[in-house]
Amino acid sequence: MAIVTLGPEGTYSHRAARAIAHGDEITFRQSVTAIVEAVSGGECDRGVVPIENSIEGSVTETLDALADHDVAVVREVVTPIRHALLAQGESFDTIASHSQALAQCRPYLEREYPDATLEAVASTAQGVEFAREDPQVAGIGHPANAENGLEVLAEDIQEQDSNATRFFAIAPADQRSDGGGKTTLVVYPNTNYPGLLLELLEPFADRDVNLSRVESRPSGRRLGDYMFHVDVEAGLYESRTQEAIEELEALAEDGWVRRLGSYDTEHVVE
Amino acid sequence: MAIVTLGPEGTYSHRAARAIAHGDEITFRQSVTAIVEAVSGGECDRGVVPIENSIEGSVTETLDALADHDVAVVREVVTPIRHALLAQGESFDTIASHSQALAQCRPYLEREYPDATLEAVASTAQGVEFAREDPQVAGIGHPANAENGLEVLAEDIQEQDSNATRFFAIAPADQRSDGGGKTTLVVYPNTNYPGLLLELLEPFADRDVNLSRVESRPSGRRLGDYMFHVDVEAGLYESRTQEAIEELEALAEDGWVRRLGSYDTEHVVE
Repeated sequence: MAIVTLGPEGTYSHRAARAIAHGDEITFRQSVTAIVEAVSGGECDRGVVPIENSIEGSVTETLDALADHDVAVVREVVTPIRHALLAQGESFDTIASHSQALAQCRPYLEREYPDATLEAVASTAQGVEFAREDPQVAGIGHPANAENGLEVLAEDIQEQDSNATRFFAIAPADQRSDGGGKTTLVVYPNTNYPGLLLELLEPFADRDVNLSRVESRPSGRRLGDYMFHVDVEAGLYESRTQEAIEELEALAEDGWVRRLGSYDTEHVVE
Repeated sequence: MAIVTLGPEGTYSHRAARAIAHGDEITFRQSVTAIVEAVSGGECDRGVVPIENSIEGSVTETLDALADHDVAVVREVVTPIRHALLAQGESFDTIASHSQALAQCRPYLEREYPDATLEAVASTAQGVEFAREDPQVAGIGHPANAENGLEVLAEDIQEQDSNATRFFAIAPADQRSDGGGKTTLVVYPNTNYPGLLLELLEPFADRDVNLSRVESRPSGRRLGDYMFHVDVEAGLYESRTQEAIEELEALAEDGWVRRLGSYDTEHVVE
C-alpha cells in the first residue's frame, strides 16, 4: 500500500503515518493539498494529514482540501506533542512561540532562562523560523525541526501531557466506510438567517449524538457565507446518525451535505 | 490619537486604519500580537487588526490575541479585496494561490494564461512567497505585495466583488462601549458534554438575536477543549442581549464570558 504524508522525515505527520503503515512504504509531499490530490487522483492508497492540534487549532488547509476533493476519511490518529527548545546555541535572549506553547512551557523556561524575554508570535513554526534566522531567538517545536543550523537545547519541556495532534488517514472516495465510532461531515447550507447554526446542530442534539467539533470555513462566495465541518461521536451505520443527517439535508436543501466517512481512533503512544 | 496597525505601508490593514484615522498618525508593527499588546499596554490609543477574510477565514492569531489581552473592540471595518496577478515577469508557467482565490480568478486566468498550471497552496500569501522565490511561479495578492522583485501583471482579476476583509479597531479596555449594532464575546465554558455548543447558542436564538459568526479556538489545555468567539447582531445596551449573556454566564459557570464590546461597521469603498 502506498502511503503519502507531509515531509520531511521525522515530522509529527510521519510519526502518525507510521502508526497506520504496518511496514508499508511512506512517501512525502510538501503540502496537505498535494497529499489530498495524490489520494483523490488514485496515485496513492492512503494519505495522512493533520486536522487539528491542541495549541493552534484546526489546520485550515486540510479542512479546505477535504471540502474540495472527493476522498474518504478512514481513520483518526492522535499523537502526543512533545515540545523541545530549539536555537542556534545558548546565546539567545528571546524565546518566540505561540502564546499557548509559551504558557505550557513557562515553569521550565522561568527556571532555566529567567532573564529571557518571552515573545508571542503567530505559531510555533513562526517562532522556529525566527530562531533559524536570528541567534538571539529560541523557538519551541518538535526536535525534528533542528536542522539547518538549529540545536535541540532541551526536550519535553512542556508542563502538561495533554498536548496532542489529530490526523486523518484518507483513502479514495470509494473506500468510504459506515463503520466506526466517529463520523465527519461537511455541510454547506448556502443560506444564512438568525438561528441557522443552531438549527443545523439540533438534529444531533435531539438524538443525543455528541458533536465533538464544529468548525466554520468561508465558502469563498461572500463574507459571512460558511461551510461547516462537523465531527460526530457516532457511526454512519447507526440509525440515529442516518436520521440526523437526513434532517440536516432537508435544512441544507439549497446547498449540500457530504459524508467523509466513519472511522475509529488510533492513539500513538511514544 | 496614536493608531497602530500591520505594516508595511499599503497593506489592507493600512487601508482599514486610514478609514478610522481621520488624519491621525498611523504607525506599524510586524504582528497582530504586537499591535494588541501596544493597545492593552496603553502605548497606543487604537489598533486595527484583521479578523476574518472571505477566502482564508478567521485570522487565528487575532482571535488568540484578543482572548489573551484586555482590550475593547470599538469598531468594525470592512474593506473590499482586489486581486492582482504578481510575478517576477511574464516567464511563469504555474499560478500558485489559495484554491478559492484561484477559483475566483479562473475566468481571467483561463482566458489570459490557458497553458499555466493552477496550483492550490495553503494561502494567497504563500503563493506570493513562492512567486518571489521562483520566476516560474505567479501568485495572487494585493498590489502592495509587488516589492522585492515582483511586478503587478494585472489588477482586479477576480470574477466577483463579494470578496472582503473584516478588521476590528481596538482600544484600551476602559473604552469598551455598549452602543452599536454588533457585539463580540469570548466564551470559555471549561467543560464539555453532548449538546454543549447547542446550549450555548440557545439563549440568543430564544431572543431572536442572530449570531453572525461562531468560531472555536483551542483553549490550549487539552485536545477538544475550546473557547468560542461569538459575534452577535445586537448591541450590549439591549436588554435581550444582556439577558442572553446572563443565561450564557450561568451555562459557563465553570469558565468565563468576556464582553469585548459593541460597535458599528464602517464600509471602506475604494
